Amino acid sequence: MAVTYRQAGVDVALADALIERIKPLARATRIPEVVEDVGGFAGLCAVPEDIDHPLLVSGTDGVGTKLKVAFATGRHDTIGQDLVAMSVNDVITTGARPLFFLDYFGCGKLELGVAESVIAGVADGCRLAGCALIGGETAELPGMYPDGEYDLAGFCVGVVSRHRVLGPARVQVGDALIAVASSGLHSNGYSLARRVLEQELALDLSQHHPALGSSVADALLTPTRIYARAVQALLKELGPEVHALCHITGGGIPGNLPRVLPEGTIAQIRMSHERPKIFDVIERGGPVDPEEMFKTFNLGVGLIAVVRAEARERALATLTAAGERAWHFGALVAGPPDAAASVERLED
Amino acid sequence: MAVTYRQAGVDVALADALIERIKPLARATRIPEVVEDVGGFAGLCAVPEDIDHPLLVSGTDGVGTKLKVAFATGRHDTIGQDLVAMSVNDVITTGARPLFFLDYFGCGKLELGVAESVIAGVADGCRLAGCALIGGETAELPGMYPDGEYDLAGFCVGVVSRHRVLGPARVQVGDALIAVASSGLHSNGYSLARRVLEQELALDLSQHHPALGSSVADALLTPTRIYARAVQALLKELGPEVHALCHITGGGIPGNLPRVLPEGTIAQIRMSHERPKIFDVIERGGPVDPEEMFKTFNLGVGLIAVVRAEARERALATLTAAGERAWHFGALVAGPPDAAASVERLED
Repeated sequence: MAVTYRQAGVDVALADALIERIKPLARATRIPEVVEDVGGFAGLCAVPEDIDHPLLVSGTDGVGTKLKVAFATGRHDTIGQDLVAMSVNDVITTGARPLFFLDYFGCGKLELGVAESVIAGVADGCRLAGCALIGGETAELPGMYPDGEYDLAGFCVGVVSRHRVLGPARVQVGDALIAVASSGLHSNGYSLARRVLEQELALDLSQHHPALGSSVADALLTPTRIYARAVQALLKELGPEVHALCHITGGGIPGNLPRVLPEGTIAQIRMSHERPKIFDVIERGGPVDPEEMFKTFNLGVGLIAVVRAEARERALATLTAAGERAWHFGALVAGPPDAAASVERLED
Repeated sequence: MAVTYRQAGVDVALADALIERIKPLARATRIPEVVEDVGGFAGLCAVPEDIDHPLLVSGTDGVGTKLKVAFATGRHDTIGQDLVAMSVNDVITTGARPLFFLDYFGCGKLELGVAESVIAGVADGCRLAGCALIGGETAELPGMYPDGEYDLAGFCVGVVSRHRVLGPARVQVGDALIAVASSGLHSNGYSLARRVLEQELALDLSQHHPALGSSVADALLTPTRIYARAVQALLKELGPEVHALCHITGGGIPGNLPRVLPEGTIAQIRMSHERPKIFDVIERGGPVDPEEMFKTFNLGVGLIAVVRAEARERALATLTAAGERAWHFGALVAGPPDAAASVERLED
């Protein structure tokens, strides 16, 4: 008997059905720059005409083992927002406005409902970021993933004027550091978080946890905040008084903040804010050393803005008006000349 | 005893070591438009200034279960070229010049040698495509992939003038179809190919196969051709006489060629070319029905150019001079008005 592609584990008709379901989701994320698809092989987007000397800014990321929590709970509707957040929050640190996003969804056996749910979350994230979901790939790879599991990768392109790129060159001693609250773990450190919660503490993900005020699953699946619109508001209000932006991802504050600071500077910060309870549960539950916590998780700080000292209050007001919780986090002082930038925690 | 991130299965130092090894590989793919990295969160690339009303063209893809052949043979040095090819060959069908590429590498346990080998292949592919490897993500996800396995996703952005976008609107009855040779399976249909070769025929991948003139593994791992430079040459030589380009991926010729043709047309083609032997081995070995072969594999045709009839010989000469094997494949005739475009095979 003849062998078919379907017998080999690939259902082309199912993939086509998924594409039909995705189309309206993607259409709802359209921005004026997107050009109607001309043949289906690629997405087209104009370069915004109001940007002088435009530079394209690109980033790619996945969501790490936060996926395992989605698998364990069967809740696939927000992990797509996490995917968008991880790339978008990187791209906007340059001062760029996100333009478009593409996703890769790889699985062993395509489950229409799961894939649609994930991609609906991607579309939600794109709307929050103000960027268009312009393309994607759904790959059915028999034998590559266990049933019910998948991996995700996301890709974002934004645009910024060559004259407005943020970064270390703009940052000066005396600048103020503004923290913007995270919604929880975002999408980093889940291998350690799950090790503590599922193994050391042997918690049932679905059970209500008194200290969290929710189930462990709810706390772990809280979607990553997307700072794109708040950052656009900040750039509009403060203009060149915004010097740098830092996305707190893997490596935590000490692993990320120095990346946007010039040599010979020290970021003096105060970790006195109220952080999401999930971090306390993990730290006590491990126990995990506070230093390890600091260099693994965002600890309640999703984004740090480095702004001109005089603009500090306006920055706080603008971010607050944009719906973020933001606070004065510290300041930049002079360190040993030519030494790499570093982070110093002041006593609470 | 306190729990650390490393004990949870994530080795940050190893990831940092990989980044150091990747840097020179990425640097070797630089194009003039790339801007020196300003903080590490995102890649920056200028929009080429010689393109009137630039449109950004983006595509994403993986390499499917061709990965399984890399795992089985331990040969990871060319799968990266496949990854670049899959996205780049999509992007160039619009007439775009590829600008930059980003890769996502997801694994359960990071193996430095394997990851470096894969990404070296990505860099090779970028050089062949003339685009810059501007960013990437290496994700170590404990428990997500079996040891020694990984998944890959690639993202490409190119640029084309709004006035030069190829596609169905330019295509006319009477146009000539030019086939450009593939190097083999490229990166589609591997689940079916492996089912036949490994299960039905129970072949040893490493063994020499007389009909192939090589080992089965060599035939299966032949890198996907990247048509970017040949297409740039064709566009330069023929200009607006190139009407459409079609990348033959999953779905084969009948699943892809109609996507670039207008309604009411029929592509009459002749499948009389000599195709790579691997297709014969699969078709006989399954056996696989010739129709199933036709709608699953490229069958030796990696790209189809739709050009003005009068430009046919110049197209062939240009593609040949650019190092491709190309031949006259057929022509476009009028079909029932308003009917979807279709493909008709003429007798050999």
